[in-house]
Amino acid sequence: MEYFEVLKKDSNSRARLGKITTAKNTIYTPVFIPVGTKATVKAVLNEQLGDMGCEIILSNLYHLYLSPGIEILKKAGGLHEFSHWEKSILTDSGGFQVFSLSNIRKISEDGVEFRSIIDGSMYFFTPEKVVRMQIGIGSDIMMVLDECSTFAAPERVIVDAAKRTMKWARLSIEEFKKHDDNVNSKLFGIVQGGFNKNLRKYCAQSISELGFSGIALGGLSVGEKRDLTVEMIDYTVNYVDNKKPLYVMGLGDPIGILEAINCGIDMFDSVLPTRISRNGSAFTRFGKINIKNAKFSDDFSPIDQFCNCYACRNYTKAYIKHLYKSREILSSILLSIHNLYFLFDLVRNCRMAISNNNFVNFKNEFLKNYKTASF
Amino acid sequence: MEYFEVLKKDSNSRARLGKITTAKNTIYTPVFIPVGTKATVKAVLNEQLGDMGCEIILSNLYHLYLSPGIEILKKAGGLHEFSHWEKSILTDSGGFQVFSLSNIRKISEDGVEFRSIIDGSMYFFTPEKVVRMQIGIGSDIMMVLDECSTFAAPERVIVDAAKRTMKWARLSIEEFKKHDDNVNSKLFGIVQGGFNKNLRKYCAQSISELGFSGIALGGLSVGEKRDLTVEMIDYTVNYVDNKKPLYVMGLGDPIGILEAINCGIDMFDSVLPTRISRNGSAFTRFGKINIKNAKFSDDFSPIDQFCNCYACRNYTKAYIKHLYKSREILSSILLSIHNLYFLFDLVRNCRMAISNNNFVNFKNEFLKNYKTASF
Repeated sequence: MEYFEVLKKDSNSRARLGKITTAKNTIYTPVFIPVGTKATVKAVLNEQLGDMGCEIILSNLYHLYLSPGIEILKKAGGLHEFSHWEKSILTDSGGFQVFSLSNIRKISEDGVEFRSIIDGSMYFFTPEKVVRMQIGIGSDIMMVLDECSTFAAPERVIVDAAKRTMKWARLSIEEFKKHDDNVNSKLFGIVQGGFNKNLRKYCAQSISELGFSGIALGGLSVGEKRDLTVEMIDYTVNYVDNKKPLYVMGLGDPIGILEAINCGIDMFDSVLPTRISRNGSAFTRFGKINIKNAKFSDDFSPIDQFCNCYACRNYTKAYIKHLYKSREILSSILLSIHNLYFLFDLVRNCRMAISNNNFVNFKNEFLKNYKTASF
Repeated sequence: MEYFEVLKKDSNSRARLGKITTAKNTIYTPVFIPVGTKATVKAVLNEQLGDMGCEIILSNLYHLYLSPGIEILKKAGGLHEFSHWEKSILTDSGGFQVFSLSNIRKISEDGVEFRSIIDGSMYFFTPEKVVRMQIGIGSDIMMVLDECSTFAAPERVIVDAAKRTMKWARLSIEEFKKHDDNVNSKLFGIVQGGFNKNLRKYCAQSISELGFSGIALGGLSVGEKRDLTVEMIDYTVNYVDNKKPLYVMGLGDPIGILEAINCGIDMFDSVLPTRISRNGSAFTRFGKINIKNAKFSDDFSPIDQFCNCYACRNYTKAYIKHLYKSREILSSILLSIHNLYFLFDLVRNCRMAISNNNFVNFKNEFLKNYKTASF
């Protein structure tokens, strides 16, 4: 069976309906991947994710490496066994976390030395080691080690980071080929290059030549305006091998997802839906609301009357506001379920619209409602 | 249908199997009632409680009065509607909370004036108002307003509190009788009297004469040794009307529950199972464990291999330890499910043992295992 198939292309945009087949299951694209950084999607049970139709979650090698540690995961029989999740897992290499969370000591051509955020110990990640560790814990989709720059980094830093990321990509795929015959894991490359179009083009083309199973766009949605994100995606997609699944890392707002699908992107992940839940926010068809709003005190309707999630079928805004105000865990649980469901539902509707050759209309309708928020 | 029936008495102890029928459902006793102070049993969904066989939860008038407020609850159609719980709800009057949490300003013969822990506003609870509010929010089993003394309070304070509690009990039942014909709620009296046997006897007898639907023992499990708790229960039970359901408030440890059932007690509630969950503790057949223990890092067995709860059927100690260490909400969720199930299972086994006239053997076996903890 083909690892990735494009089942249908929309005729009025670059949006496409596809299918990824991993060793675990079939994942229809466009797909939103919830983030379970530490082997748990915050506040949600795997069973609840399954009920919502979730087929793949993301976990993070950097965090798992620090706790519980790779050896514990191997002893458990892998990350799936450890966390009781039978469907697919995509593991991020930890590049982004090493660069954003750690006290980095030294970046060399070989890898990156960093200090643990947990206990201050020193560690060294190389592209090869990162591949071996992800294989070792049984990841279904692995990401290469990349070097992320901040949004405002100087041109020189961005160029150096992009070049090093390219070099590491080559080392990663070489390492991967040593194990390829024996494992079911797939390896994705990452296109960096900041907001420099020439550099993005170079990285996109170079990564596409290396034979990865999928291509990710990294270093976007890092603080820039959404228009710029979309412009960079739209531009970069021209230069990647689009027979592979295309993945924008860290994108989770509904508008961004729709615009990226419009450019031909197949995969998304973001902590956004679970993070905003812990702050009392919720997506609705008519824009984002915050449950703290005084007017919800006696609003006995669901968060979104058109939503079919567990929270909306059973609970009211007034109750969830009371829970949030009372700092009850149940408020995070119910809002996380709702916000995740909202994005699962959004990409499901996109798939249906593409299948009906109606994506652009669907997108415009959604945006019209979402942007004219009455809240 | 009788409100309360004793279905079977154990011949070797005072343990009994009973049945309470509320407007909502049938509750077999002995029963453990999980505490949902603020209209939510912390970290657990109502659906999950239902799956565990939970037929009744406790909520607290004091907290509900402060947030979301009685008017919101009435507007929602009552506490059941507000919190999406269709089975029975017992509401505590808030006496214990007024006395333990609030900055009390004045106790008078009419009631108690206190300052809100939320915003510092002043409020006044009277026995009559407390009954009316509980009726107003649709409580199935209501508790009278009582005055709780601390464990170490001087004799004079305890005597005064007990007398005032008796006076308030009379006012409560008079108020209740004004509404009795129109509501399905039942009102329970509370026996106070500290650790003074004469006073307990006097309160037990006096409360029993007032025609309540059930009788609670308050002011126990407030910091004293368990032997003393059990001694007071054992003594007091002699003087209450045992045709009524008997309820020890605030008792939730497995040993205490078994000893109280042995004395003829039918109902228990406690925050213990959910509170210890948030601290990483778990009941097991062989005593309590704490998931933080280093040896659980690579222990891929469930919390309790004999437990059939959702957490034990699906997750390992190693994973829950990792979650706890990572401060993930899922650790509280899984441990709460386990610890509640453990107590539901305990009382279910007690009911079965009483039904088989085998309660004392069951209790001794359980205690032998539980006390010889190998952990």
